[in-house]
Amino acid sequence: MKKITVKKFGGTSVGSPEKIQAVAQRIKNSLEKDKSYVIVVSAMGNTTNQLVELAKQISSNPSPREYDALVSTGENISASLLAMSFQELGIDAISLTGAQAGILTQDLHAKAKILTIKTDRIQKELAENKVVIITGFQGINPNLDITTIGRGGSDTSAVALAAALECKECEIYTDVDGVYTTDPRRISNAQKIHEISYEEMLEMASLGAKVLHPRAVECAKENNIVLHVRSSFELSEGTRVKEVNEMEVNKPVTGVAMNENEAIISLIGVPDNPGVAGDIFSELADNGINVDMIIQNVLEKNDSNNISFSIAEDDLEQTLKITDSITKKLTCKCVTDTAIAKISCVGIGMISKPGTAAKMFSALGRENINILRITTSEIKISCAIEQKDAQKALEILHKEFDLNDN
Amino acid sequence: MKKITVKKFGGTSVGSPEKIQAVAQRIKNSLEKDKSYVIVVSAMGNTTNQLVELAKQISSNPSPREYDALVSTGENISASLLAMSFQELGIDAISLTGAQAGILTQDLHAKAKILTIKTDRIQKELAENKVVIITGFQGINPNLDITTIGRGGSDTSAVALAAALECKECEIYTDVDGVYTTDPRRISNAQKIHEISYEEMLEMASLGAKVLHPRAVECAKENNIVLHVRSSFELSEGTRVKEVNEMEVNKPVTGVAMNENEAIISLIGVPDNPGVAGDIFSELADNGINVDMIIQNVLEKNDSNNISFSIAEDDLEQTLKITDSITKKLTCKCVTDTAIAKISCVGIGMISKPGTAAKMFSALGRENINILRITTSEIKISCAIEQKDAQKALEILHKEFDLNDN
Repeated sequence: MKKITVKKFGGTSVGSPEKIQAVAQRIKNSLEKDKSYVIVVSAMGNTTNQLVELAKQISSNPSPREYDALVSTGENISASLLAMSFQELGIDAISLTGAQAGILTQDLHAKAKILTIKTDRIQKELAENKVVIITGFQGINPNLDITTIGRGGSDTSAVALAAALECKECEIYTDVDGVYTTDPRRISNAQKIHEISYEEMLEMASLGAKVLHPRAVECAKENNIVLHVRSSFELSEGTRVKEVNEMEVNKPVTGVAMNENEAIISLIGVPDNPGVAGDIFSELADNGINVDMIIQNVLEKNDSNNISFSIAEDDLEQTLKITDSITKKLTCKCVTDTAIAKISCVGIGMISKPGTAAKMFSALGRENINILRITTSEIKISCAIEQKDAQKALEILHKEFDLNDN
Repeated sequence: MKKITVKKFGGTSVGSPEKIQAVAQRIKNSLEKDKSYVIVVSAMGNTTNQLVELAKQISSNPSPREYDALVSTGENISASLLAMSFQELGIDAISLTGAQAGILTQDLHAKAKILTIKTDRIQKELAENKVVIITGFQGINPNLDITTIGRGGSDTSAVALAAALECKECEIYTDVDGVYTTDPRRISNAQKIHEISYEEMLEMASLGAKVLHPRAVECAKENNIVLHVRSSFELSEGTRVKEVNEMEVNKPVTGVAMNENEAIISLIGVPDNPGVAGDIFSELADNGINVDMIIQNVLEKNDSNNISFSIAEDDLEQTLKITDSITKKLTCKCVTDTAIAKISCVGIGMISKPGTAAKMFSALGRENINILRITTSEIKISCAIEQKDAQKALEILHKEFDLNDN
């Protein structure tokens, strides 16, 4: 059997018929006779948002099943257009929907996880020397209903397909040419990172470096698949996300990530009963809200706690509905702070190089940037700061950890 | 089991989120507790054309499989939006794609016929008291690939579903309030027809009265289903297409239909060998080209024939490709005439009332309208005329056969 290559093209890469044709032409130019090709596509440019907009005009809270049936059509369109483009270039190609490609997910809508991929149909088409184009973002549940796996999920579709097809590498084509030490639109001398570990990428992605969806990185790590993030429009090599031995790493910090769209919610005077925190965060998790930076301070003088946590600003409305019912039940207070940015230094090298946290705090302190919250993991130090300080903090830390390009 | 009602809403009826909401509201207002509802929808307004346009930007001749995968997404969008609209009104509803609804077609693209409908999933959802919304126009072939059943095919989907669900009637909601004695945009005092036979409707539909797709009428006739054509925007009764006994009919002509987009192709000097005509029309049929008004004149003085036939102007390019290869093979000549209109008087009553043809020809003759071709069936007389005479001919015949409203 031929070696299979999986390539994923995001929404900006297939944003117009011309761009779709360019994708087909580019792949044609790189075709090798002893390889088979599986191409995963997102919806064209803004299509998914337009479909979401249609749904919103009808319902503020549409049924998840119908929502998935609706938004999944965007990928069907781009997949068949890409197949046509290949055919127009004289290359045999076929588009497969999630259902046709055998992508089976949980019986859950909008945020379903891929359970397994029955690759029979894909293998059959590859055996007939076709380029197989597969819709990202979607699958089917055991009921044969269409499910989607969450926004940005096409990356995950691609990695899951690479795993199911036993590939060693999965190429993610996007509108940037790789992962940078920080957002190059904010810091002009940010450098492209040539290799980064899954763990670092995971921290970077979760923290606002939106090049790769975190689930895709996790899935790649679990299946030991190298992710090659590269530009759809340029031929240069991008960034490889792979297993990296920390011994080989020189710098303590690989990148500095910024997330400006954070909100901090503080519950003041939560009764100090066992299980209360568990209840709160279970309910948030059940509603699919990602909670980050949980801090609990026990107040010494009475039997209540303050619990605070940060969330994405987009989830604020839904979160407040949940916390409202909680504060009523527990008769505690809820305070919200929305003008929050989170800046994070990420680096597998900090495991073997102590003092990174101290260096970060001192650098911010020198510039009078107030640190509101701190959380750390083995390879990441994050500080919540005021949004007004975001750009300045980024500049300072990027320079402090020797990431500037020159 | 509850009685099932099938209602089909066309593209203009679901042309915007507001219109889709209005459809849901209208159906809600008419819901009866002892009935179940199946709603068949077309794509929103101009969606299918937009998808076709996208395909054209990539290929002048896209693969039929990918074309079907592409254009079928339009119905998926309107079906899920309509389901959301019902849910927003507190009515349980579910959208099903052709595949989910068990609509199995031939293994043929763009013009597949529906072979059978496995109604298990539909019945299951109806048993749970859901309004079931089904995408028109699409199905799946034995390979699980998406097929479409031809433009305007949503009418056929609705009738096939009504047959599979053993309904007596199928309501077709559209942007006109019924079938008229002729196109009311052309003749202002055209009258609404309250009842019309399948045969007459079939002739009217084939001849340019574009209210109902001919295949839908045929399918309704075969399964003895009453079609009720009515307005999506008004509550008045429309036109019922059903079995009508000719004895009950007073007028010889029920309606006058006009088709301005015709072309006549004449093959001059075709060798008078048995089987030649069969070969020509088989090849056209294999390419899905509908041929109409076939006329063959044997030339007395030699052993060759003239064969002429009319087709839709849209099919001209494809037809000429086929006739070119035929004329080369048979060394005959091909002449094309495109500025042709066809005017037809249709009426089940003409069976029992002789002299209708003579009356038609005389009326046209009185006004110096030149008749280029004539064909007749039991309930129809058609004349090919020059396009410039079309409107005048329509006015004359509508009056001549006493169809004017007053």
